[in-house]
Amino acid sequence: MNSPLPPFADRAAREALAERLLQRFGSRASRAAALREQHSHGENITDAGLPDVVVFPHTNDEIAEIARACFEARMPMVPFGAGTSLEGHVAAIHGGVSVDLTQMNGILDVDAQALDCRVQAGVTRVQLNNALRGQGLFFPIDPGADATLGGMTATRASGTAAVRYGTMRDAVLGLTVVTPDGRIVHTGTRARKTAAGLDLTRLFVGSEGTLGFVAEVQLRLWGLPETVQAAVCQFPDLTAAVGIVIAALQMGVPLARVELLDAVQMQACIAHSKLDEFKPLPTLFVEFHGSPAAVREQIETMESLAGDAGGTGFQWAERPEDRTRLWKARHEVTYANLAFRPGHAMIGTDACVPISKLVQCIEETLADVARSGLVAPLAGHVGDGNFHLGILYDPARDGERARAEALAEGVALRAIRLGGTCTGEHGIGQHRIHQLEAEHPDGIVLMRAVKHALDTRGVMNPGKMLRA
Amino acid sequence: MNSPLPPFADRAAREALAERLLQRFGSRASRAAALREQHSHGENITDAGLPDVVVFPHTNDEIAEIARACFEARMPMVPFGAGTSLEGHVAAIHGGVSVDLTQMNGILDVDAQALDCRVQAGVTRVQLNNALRGQGLFFPIDPGADATLGGMTATRASGTAAVRYGTMRDAVLGLTVVTPDGRIVHTGTRARKTAAGLDLTRLFVGSEGTLGFVAEVQLRLWGLPETVQAAVCQFPDLTAAVGIVIAALQMGVPLARVELLDAVQMQACIAHSKLDEFKPLPTLFVEFHGSPAAVREQIETMESLAGDAGGTGFQWAERPEDRTRLWKARHEVTYANLAFRPGHAMIGTDACVPISKLVQCIEETLADVARSGLVAPLAGHVGDGNFHLGILYDPARDGERARAEALAEGVALRAIRLGGTCTGEHGIGQHRIHQLEAEHPDGIVLMRAVKHALDTRGVMNPGKMLRA
Repeated sequence: MNSPLPPFADRAAREALAERLLQRFGSRASRAAALREQHSHGENITDAGLPDVVVFPHTNDEIAEIARACFEARMPMVPFGAGTSLEGHVAAIHGGVSVDLTQMNGILDVDAQALDCRVQAGVTRVQLNNALRGQGLFFPIDPGADATLGGMTATRASGTAAVRYGTMRDAVLGLTVVTPDGRIVHTGTRARKTAAGLDLTRLFVGSEGTLGFVAEVQLRLWGLPETVQAAVCQFPDLTAAVGIVIAALQMGVPLARVELLDAVQMQACIAHSKLDEFKPLPTLFVEFHGSPAAVREQIETMESLAGDAGGTGFQWAERPEDRTRLWKARHEVTYANLAFRPGHAMIGTDACVPISKLVQCIEETLADVARSGLVAPLAGHVGDGNFHLGILYDPARDGERARAEALAEGVALRAIRLGGTCTGEHGIGQHRIHQLEAEHPDGIVLMRAVKHALDTRGVMNPGKMLRA
Repeated sequence: MNSPLPPFADRAAREALAERLLQRFGSRASRAAALREQHSHGENITDAGLPDVVVFPHTNDEIAEIARACFEARMPMVPFGAGTSLEGHVAAIHGGVSVDLTQMNGILDVDAQALDCRVQAGVTRVQLNNALRGQGLFFPIDPGADATLGGMTATRASGTAAVRYGTMRDAVLGLTVVTPDGRIVHTGTRARKTAAGLDLTRLFVGSEGTLGFVAEVQLRLWGLPETVQAAVCQFPDLTAAVGIVIAALQMGVPLARVELLDAVQMQACIAHSKLDEFKPLPTLFVEFHGSPAAVREQIETMESLAGDAGGTGFQWAERPEDRTRLWKARHEVTYANLAFRPGHAMIGTDACVPISKLVQCIEETLADVARSGLVAPLAGHVGDGNFHLGILYDPARDGERARAEALAEGVALRAIRLGGTCTGEHGIGQHRIHQLEAEHPDGIVLMRAVKHALDTRGVMNPGKMLRA
């Protein structure tokens, strides 16, 4: 099904194309070393790849023009947004053109009555929410980082509010994409649902830049909830904490966010974010959205469940500044972890399992951590069955990175064995390709066939997700 | 991108393959005229196509065996379920093998803690809900007909509860599919979300049998709501009725179902379903799910909105038998319509638009209906922006079918113009191919490329959705 791909452009052809782009785009194209370095990697990743040139298009037509030139010359293309990818998605590992979409940051349309909007790919989620403020609307998908909506689309991002509002899979109504050969294609519609043909929108959501560029995104929006309350509850053990989340979900309590932090993670967060009122115990951060009566009812249910499970009383944060402080602490776990063990590096895991397997998966994982001798705080979106270890290792110490990697690999393979996935929200990128192959040994053949059909020259973000 | 497809098997090759299947499958294969006729069409469609042979596989391996034989012989294959498709999906318009999956009707696994289940493609939604009864669970997606879950997956079905619970796009966690060349492929996982590779699950949901067979479906389930209340409210005009639905959605009221029936539709339903307590006025059927307090609050909000809009008081149906009677009336609109104009045939429309365009779309559509001189009751899932006309015409009267078709075409094209879709839930099949091309003039090229990559011989349900 997959004929061998032609080789990429040789050095001379690359130089020629880079020069052509410099001439065409003027100050919006650059080969400056610092800029290329900045575009050679995302976050949290040591494996980088320098692009030959960085270009900043301003319009869909300009993206298409760049794509046609690269396609023609067999030049690799790598879409680049905020650079917050965790899995090496944006590294130009075969060189080529890094197409930086951050200057395409216009909010094109907001329709409060339809509860939707259309944005250019470079708009970030914080920028969008700032623009929506005052219209009674918000965009709830929150992966922590202030990623671009194009990047969030490309990685099928989710985050803390997915238990209530879903992931980018659910929030994207339609896309404007640019194909590797430079065609501009509109997918989906503004209707809430459609049965019109193959679901190209969902095919591009999570395609990690391997099928084409995400240029514009049509997104669902939500009305700001009348009441928002956040709470923290601490538990004698992790199993009790996870247990009440599962019970609440089964009872249909519409939790808006529910985050688990284990004792080690709390220890790191208390130190980093000055959460001195809390103990280093397994902890749930919960948020409720709704009418006052609905929120009150949800709170009563959760308090009752927590009490039965030995939870040490909910602490409420009704004031926005208290809520912000809590969620800021949650979002800063990476920095908290790195500060917890100075000089250490970190490998993240992203297992996601059916919620009925979550307790087993976490318990076995923590037993692995104990055996490894490594420090690996755990935090997760437990309402989705998704949790992260931040495995800390000392790069200077012999074999420690290998032990950290083995621990991470074990978590991914366990999630797959339990009917789940190696990645709930970070994506495959460079580092999980073999895990994707383990998870979908047959599916990968179909994925490659689709990739090959839409990127006949293999020039879109090569080496990511599907190898070729 | 699309090389011409090879021709299908000639008559002799078809005869040979049919004989081979008869020998291999014994009483589970048949060329009996009545059975072939029954497998030549779905509901509500005059255009049919006789298969050469009908086969009833019992296992994924048997589907794969049939597929390999057909692929090898270039024999068209048409997946067949309950036969409730409305758009000619199951007609064997190029002959070939009708693969009837109704005997693959096992519920393989139900996990109440994970809120999911795995079923064979031939399980129907009523069968599943009967099996779930007593476990406190239900599967809410309800297109009216007792379709198979394989068929509902293939058409991306939704129905009355989509405003709250989503469509098959949202409910399917993973699939076991059989490719046209007979490979068995598992897509997705049991985790609530995944960022692992291209979204093959969503690619097959709504693929209308053009990419392969849906053999097994992993589905999300929901806990039975503590309280269910249904209500009916009648309005002086349609705009007022739609207006309160939009207002409720913007306020975040979690309506479980909300159906609009126009005055003509109510007239037909009152006669057919003996709803004598109601008037032939624009009417909303609403259902609320949740805790007693939450449902009470939703009801108060809706009553207040309805009162402001001149609604003539909610009539509540708290008893299950009263609810059943209401929803039965809603589900029987097709029969009500055909009884309303004896001797007439019906063409359905399936427009779905952004909710901000719904009033405009319905008003312009009803003006078209008035101009056409035809009777065309309107009923719809207005919470999704989706509504159906049942355009009645007298087949014996010259030109009336053509007028009905022109009216239907106008509705589809208006929905597309308003940023919506020609089909919210019925699919493309044979009859909306040109509408799909109008809706996605660029996307159709990508869809065909994907189809061609996964069905290299063009043998899967040929002539549907994508022409070749």
